Amino acid sequence: MGGKLIVRIAELEIEPDQLETYRLLLTEAIEAAVALEPGVLSLSAVSIEGSPHKIRILEVYANQTAYEAHLQTPHFLKYKNATAGMVTSLTLIDVDPITMRGKL
Amino acid sequence: MGGKLIVRIAELEIEPDQLETYRLLLTEAIEAAVALEPGVLSLSAVSIEGSPHKIRILEVYANQTAYEAHLQTPHFLKYKNATAGMVTSLTLIDVDPITMRGKL
Repeated sequence: MGGKLIVRIAELEIEPDQLETYRLLLTEAIEAAVALEPGVLSLSAVSIEGSPHKIRILEVYANQTAYEAHLQTPHFLKYKNATAGMVTSLTLIDVDPITMRGKL
Repeated sequence: MGGKLIVRIAELEIEPDQLETYRLLLTEAIEAAVALEPGVLSLSAVSIEGSPHKIRILEVYANQTAYEAHLQTPHFLKYKNATAGMVTSLTLIDVDPITMRGKL
């Protein structure tokens, strides 16, 4: 799969009352995306210790086409629509990979 | 390998004049750690688009013992000593994994 990797950090804040539901929806969407989409290379979601409503996601897509295809998938659209009212802040930071190594 | 995963985000700022050298040292250290240490599960280093001296690293260790062993390795100590004068800001953020999926 050619083209430039698309890498991004999403920083989110979630309505605390809805955090448990949000986490389930996020987990379901991430697992579906990595399992079903060849161009979704990695999605790592974490919450800040002591501030569990602050979420960060490192997203790695094979290229721009893969990213745009991801936005049209049923699992992403379900997540986006279902969580729209739970997300109180969303910052998307475009980043360039330096090196990414793993055995997860 | 048992125990609780240790996951962290490091946010660094690098002296711009030394950025090229810093990136080489960081890449060398990350590649050695993931290749040689069973307990270093993933290290993903990126720079912010438009602000290449701002670096973020998502670090995943198998457990606390693996993390502490990592700090004593020759490749980590080389990186830490060689880059000490290049890093103008370092913030370490402890995080809890929600889900981390990848095929990198």
